Amino acid sequence: MKISILGPRGTFSEEAAHKFFKNHELLLGKDIEEIFESVLSGKAEYGIVPVENSLEGSVGVTLELLQKKNVKIYGEIILDIRHSLMALPSAGLRDIKEIISHPHALAQCKNFIKTLKVNTRSFHSTAEAAREIAQHKLKNAAAIAPKVAAQLYNLKILKEDIQDENHNQTRFFVIAKKDYEKTGRDKTSIIFGLKDRPGALYEALEGFALEKINLTKIESRPSRKALGDYVFYIDFEGHREDARIRKVLRNLKKRVAFMKVLGSYSCLRKG
Amino acid sequence: MKISILGPRGTFSEEAAHKFFKNHELLLGKDIEEIFESVLSGKAEYGIVPVENSLEGSVGVTLELLQKKNVKIYGEIILDIRHSLMALPSAGLRDIKEIISHPHALAQCKNFIKTLKVNTRSFHSTAEAAREIAQHKLKNAAAIAPKVAAQLYNLKILKEDIQDENHNQTRFFVIAKKDYEKTGRDKTSIIFGLKDRPGALYEALEGFALEKINLTKIESRPSRKALGDYVFYIDFEGHREDARIRKVLRNLKKRVAFMKVLGSYSCLRKG
Repeated sequence: MKISILGPRGTFSEEAAHKFFKNHELLLGKDIEEIFESVLSGKAEYGIVPVENSLEGSVGVTLELLQKKNVKIYGEIILDIRHSLMALPSAGLRDIKEIISHPHALAQCKNFIKTLKVNTRSFHSTAEAAREIAQHKLKNAAAIAPKVAAQLYNLKILKEDIQDENHNQTRFFVIAKKDYEKTGRDKTSIIFGLKDRPGALYEALEGFALEKINLTKIESRPSRKALGDYVFYIDFEGHREDARIRKVLRNLKKRVAFMKVLGSYSCLRKG
Repeated sequence: MKISILGPRGTFSEEAAHKFFKNHELLLGKDIEEIFESVLSGKAEYGIVPVENSLEGSVGVTLELLQKKNVKIYGEIILDIRHSLMALPSAGLRDIKEIISHPHALAQCKNFIKTLKVNTRSFHSTAEAAREIAQHKLKNAAAIAPKVAAQLYNLKILKEDIQDENHNQTRFFVIAKKDYEKTGRDKTSIIFGLKDRPGALYEALEGFALEKINLTKIESRPSRKALGDYVFYIDFEGHREDARIRKVLRNLKKRVAFMKVLGSYSCLRKG
């Protein structure tokens, strides 16, 4: 089974893949669009794309591609973003004079780095930083990267969980040509467009309230088509094939400028 | 007048400051929290913080600090994120063998970079990349950075507007100890918390719909306090001192777990 993820190897996308799938072969994409294309062309059966991070918000590119492309959400993965400090197997914490990583990871471990009094250098990705240490046998440098990168590049983990915040989570969607069957513990994601007028959103939400359907996420984004038009992303509990959800969505469709069901999937709680 | 912005100099934060304020002295903060602290302590009269980007979503740290700290939103700035390629004054496009910048900027100019067939290298910030070129007189390198960085480091702009997407905007808030007086073209931002139950959001929005108050943004985020609790950020048209808005907010407060008015400010349209 082929799974398309954001390359290079050794990133949180790879950790997400291991968490969701047992036996799989990774197909590395250069960017999020390439992952969508792999699934559409059939090169990969599934793709894994980041959709939101608790510190940095939603990934706009993913939301837009979900709207445009003919793929469905097949699953969700919620991953704790835990950073590790890794170096050559022979190195100890005292040898480290430079820490290298992606600027986000460096920023997220700022307090830890301060205690070490070392220099930092930026890389394109956390995994590239880990690879740099291994490839060039850098004795006085350590990389901040996910654990999976240490395995991949035969590095030693000097310290785990070095991030300042412990509430840093990334949510990924598993995408496929079809969404997931009904399991009884399901979530559905939809997107719809509204003209910018008072009460429009309130009216759109009425059906969900009447049928007591619980919303788990709502986010508005300005539509790129016309100023003053908005696109709403909504996640709610239940499967699109549930009778009351079918009814709500049927009514919603009549009230909005456009509506697309992005998919129904099983609620996979982290851990 | 002192304005606290995210350092280093030469970034989009500095462009935002120039757009909003005429005469001002910049006070550089290491991170977003330091900008809040400068305003609270009185070291700076105003601070400028990024709140959302059209490609990358909301800046979680800013939203959380607005909730926690006793500062108000005084204004908003919407900035087009336009990247420029800059190099030493003696260099031409043909001399360039390497392009350096923040990974986000490199990613946002991917198509342009492809046409040049050059290597890329990551830096902590776009401005640092520009400074690197100037400081080390790198003849064969160019930086991707905002225009303001070229002025600051005496670099020549080889090409403007090299970003792939033309809809990349960042919204900044100007923060201060007090919000802005009523101008007749105002917006207000609030935050409130709801227990996770069907219909809760619908009921919370009722007052806005009845009073025909136009929402311009809504975003839910999981509360960090308890699983299943949600925090909502809402922007709407009007000033918190308008009679109908006072009424809606008074009623809303009775229905929600907590509510905070983050501030009213004038709608400053870009351009």
